[in-house]
Amino acid sequence: MEGIFITFEGPDGAGKTTQLRRLAEELRQMGHEVVVTREPGGTAISDKIRSIILDPVHEEMVDQAEVLLYAASRAQHVHELILPALKANKIVLCDRFIDASIAYQAYGLGADLETVREVNRFASSGLQATRTYILDVPVEVSLARLHQRAAGTETAAQQLDRIEQKNVEYHSRVRAGFHQIAADHPERVRVVNADRSQDEIVADILSDCNRLLKEHLSV
Amino acid sequence: MEGIFITFEGPDGAGKTTQLRRLAEELRQMGHEVVVTREPGGTAISDKIRSIILDPVHEEMVDQAEVLLYAASRAQHVHELILPALKANKIVLCDRFIDASIAYQAYGLGADLETVREVNRFASSGLQATRTYILDVPVEVSLARLHQRAAGTETAAQQLDRIEQKNVEYHSRVRAGFHQIAADHPERVRVVNADRSQDEIVADILSDCNRLLKEHLSV
Repeated sequence: MEGIFITFEGPDGAGKTTQLRRLAEELRQMGHEVVVTREPGGTAISDKIRSIILDPVHEEMVDQAEVLLYAASRAQHVHELILPALKANKIVLCDRFIDASIAYQAYGLGADLETVREVNRFASSGLQATRTYILDVPVEVSLARLHQRAAGTETAAQQLDRIEQKNVEYHSRVRAGFHQIAADHPERVRVVNADRSQDEIVADILSDCNRLLKEHLSV
Repeated sequence: MEGIFITFEGPDGAGKTTQLRRLAEELRQMGHEVVVTREPGGTAISDKIRSIILDPVHEEMVDQAEVLLYAASRAQHVHELILPALKANKIVLCDRFIDASIAYQAYGLGADLETVREVNRFASSGLQATRTYILDVPVEVSLARLHQRAAGTETAAQQLDRIEQKNVEYHSRVRAGFHQIAADHPERVRVVNADRSQDEIVADILSDCNRLLKEHLSV
């Protein structure tokens, strides 16, 4: 048996980080070896690429460069960290993966969908998640949460990174993109209503994940 | 009329930088507006990507990440600097371009040729050079020149960057790759014997370039 690869998708402000941490705790208590990671990032090289992608100073970045930098960061992450962990039978929980590139870059920015797919297939050597949870909230809710976070800091809007500063229409296209991805991959993707209490969301994800583990162990 | 895009290819140590500077001087004396640039690099974002690619510390970099980082750097360079200069009727001289990715990553590293092409077509929005000069020298000659350069510094071999440290078989595959590219694109690519004096090489390139300019101006 090989490990299980679970990805969390959805907008910033949907609660991905909290859900991912809570699921990791539950799985560890059940005795599983769990690796928690995130994109862009996850390795030393990927983190350096991340800092280029997210630096608000890089307003001039063209869409093609953005697509390719995410894919480069992912290539290193997949081959250096994710694949070795899966081969060692671990459960890998990853905050964002290829679906984020499809939603943000193809549906959001308008980059050619098939090219974004092809570039990412190359980057990941074809690796796909076993299960993907899309944490879904209305755009106003995720943006309001982000602005609340930023308001806690001194310079408010300046603290939002380059991606987060984009406008509401863009974020609406991204959300619709995530819904389309779920429709395209019903066997892999679960859309989770994240406009609820953290405990309710955890319960849903844990229940689905337990079924997934049973299926996986019985294979 | 739009500008002319001339690229210089070949191994480090073949004399690309000198030739490019000498051609730029000649063209400027003839009254042309000339932009001199290089890859990886050429813009602020591309230079940051360059520093990740070439840092000798990044031994763990996987081939897919290398291909995608070069392409990301190129995407920014093409759209921010090269295309605007060409639209302004300038002559752009560029030290390395897509052929370098084909030669080093596909022929050298063994990355899938068609994927490297496709990724780079996406990065450059299909831009190709008007003319490409491949400065060709035997592998032993280019490596000997590099080691001479490095010997001038205190820590010799350590001064060679990550790409330059690869072995002779790799550099032989790269050279064969450049020859194949020339065979595939006889209308665009000129192979220049660079195992001669700088003046002889300059004379050859200038003579070809003058013909190119005449053709271009008469269109």
